Amino acid sequence: MIKIAVDAMGGDNAPSEIVKGAVEAVSERPDITVCLTGQEDIIKKELEKYTYKKEQIEIVPASEVIETGEPPVNAIRKKKDSSIVVGMNLVKRGEADGFVSAGSSGAILVGGQVIVGRIKGVERPPLAPLIPTEKGFSLLIDCGANVDARPSHLVQFAQMGSIYMEHVMGVKRPRVAIVNIGAEEEKGNALVKETFPLLKECPGINFIGSIEAREIPHGGADVIVCEAFVGNVILKLYEGVGATMISMIKKGMMSSLRSKIGALLIKPALKSTLKSFDASQYGGAPLLGLKGLVVKTHGSSKANEVKNSIIQCIAFKEQAISEKIGQCLSPREEDIKEP
Amino acid sequence: MIKIAVDAMGGDNAPSEIVKGAVEAVSERPDITVCLTGQEDIIKKELEKYTYKKEQIEIVPASEVIETGEPPVNAIRKKKDSSIVVGMNLVKRGEADGFVSAGSSGAILVGGQVIVGRIKGVERPPLAPLIPTEKGFSLLIDCGANVDARPSHLVQFAQMGSIYMEHVMGVKRPRVAIVNIGAEEEKGNALVKETFPLLKECPGINFIGSIEAREIPHGGADVIVCEAFVGNVILKLYEGVGATMISMIKKGMMSSLRSKIGALLIKPALKSTLKSFDASQYGGAPLLGLKGLVVKTHGSSKANEVKNSIIQCIAFKEQAISEKIGQCLSPREEDIKEP
Repeated sequence: MIKIAVDAMGGDNAPSEIVKGAVEAVSERPDITVCLTGQEDIIKKELEKYTYKKEQIEIVPASEVIETGEPPVNAIRKKKDSSIVVGMNLVKRGEADGFVSAGSSGAILVGGQVIVGRIKGVERPPLAPLIPTEKGFSLLIDCGANVDARPSHLVQFAQMGSIYMEHVMGVKRPRVAIVNIGAEEEKGNALVKETFPLLKECPGINFIGSIEAREIPHGGADVIVCEAFVGNVILKLYEGVGATMISMIKKGMMSSLRSKIGALLIKPALKSTLKSFDASQYGGAPLLGLKGLVVKTHGSSKANEVKNSIIQCIAFKEQAISEKIGQCLSPREEDIKEP
Repeated sequence: MIKIAVDAMGGDNAPSEIVKGAVEAVSERPDITVCLTGQEDIIKKELEKYTYKKEQIEIVPASEVIETGEPPVNAIRKKKDSSIVVGMNLVKRGEADGFVSAGSSGAILVGGQVIVGRIKGVERPPLAPLIPTEKGFSLLIDCGANVDARPSHLVQFAQMGSIYMEHVMGVKRPRVAIVNIGAEEEKGNALVKETFPLLKECPGINFIGSIEAREIPHGGADVIVCEAFVGNVILKLYEGVGATMISMIKKGMMSSLRSKIGALLIKPALKSTLKSFDASQYGGAPLLGLKGLVVKTHGSSKANEVKNSIIQCIAFKEQAISEKIGQCLSPREEDIKEP
């Protein structure tokens, strides 16, 4: 039985959509249990709306809530009884196999490192969302809050991203590329130029070279390596351009009677197209390199995204991703000087 | 009479679309002359296809062509009789008011600095394309090839971008924002954190703070300041996400008879919507801060983009942008120690 802790209080649509997502997840998977962390009376009231197997959902009370704007280090330190800290402690103590939250990114990133802790050998845990492409999806690694990365961090991102894509998402020999401003090896900023040869020499990854941002939506690589500032820009621009185009197309279609009729006819086809370009169906972004699984879902997550994030944790646990990362990145014995 | 030099040999569609664009520009504007630089016989043959006022187009022969893949510094140094070097020399000698090229970005950036030369006080000339937004367009500054910028460069980008948007594009008190991974002042990488207070104190610009990438397509600012690596990622991802979505929507609409009929009905409306989100209508990207005007148009430019790039030069010249930048950025007299 796999047990996933879920932050019932985090995100724009908490607690209703979070609780709904948890109910949908346990209905789909009879082999899991969900622990909802947060204010008991509120969660109970939400749960009363649904029919589900009582033994599959439990509530772990947490009286406090970390708000999005709060300085994360302080929040994690002071709000010991918050839904995030309580959920992460469940993972730390081995009482849950993973923790899903749509709450404050900063608090989740800090909490992951401080409470759950890094795997030995991991220099920096990256946040790695899946982004939709023409061919399916790619892993964008890192989109976290730790900017100004070093080349060795990027190499570890490539290794961790490859393990995740191969064993959780089932992509054979995932193609790894580094985000660059041209395809040639001599192009790039100082970080990319230093990292490129390290990636070329890195064993166990399928490095295909540089990727220009234009090729990302076409599915030019499976693991897109970049430092967090650039990753954040890519992730948010993806959303922004997509949302703007959809809104402009909708407005455009309402501009004449002719196009209004056309719009009605293409609606079902358009809907399924846009769905395949919607990040929410892929669940949340794992924070890789931690001793336990922590998944950050979008702040505006609805039940479907929460459900998918919970289900994503199953493969992560079953495939023993943290152990695989540990084996790949932990200092080799010959490097350790102590007897 | 304003005279614009145009590289007839640069870009994927040279010389045919370049020459066509030049003809369209002079047909629209009887007050300009275009000098086409490149191989005389080839240009002549293209010009024979059109009717235009002969005195408005002249050919300035250049026997060599700089290819896209060539190392730019070498190319500019060695190919003295290339269409790019010949065109830039016309600007340098004051025989042309501006130079438009769809050729090698690297060669244009290097040539701009080496041949045309920087305005006194300008530390680094940025490449600043206009990008489409929901509300119209914004200036993305810098998308050039000089990565790893310093805070003082970014401040100058904000100043030059403001001058361009106000006087060439007619945007009153353009809103200036710096690309960041959060709206709060304490967020960002080292470069952004150092630049932010400098922008706040910079006189003569309307600084509105940070902008997240998500807000760029919504038109959240008029002048989007960033260093070239991030700018390049933004520009190319814009293109990539847009192209992918359009191709997916088209494919989606062809999936059933019902949606095919709908597609026919919405076609005109959709076309005008997509046109308003098409960067090509705004002409090329100026390389700001040079003693003369150099405009880089997209490598895949067609006649319409070439025409718009040429016409854009008129406002640049009429508004004396280089002089305005010089006045704004040149070292103030009290800073100069010599008598």
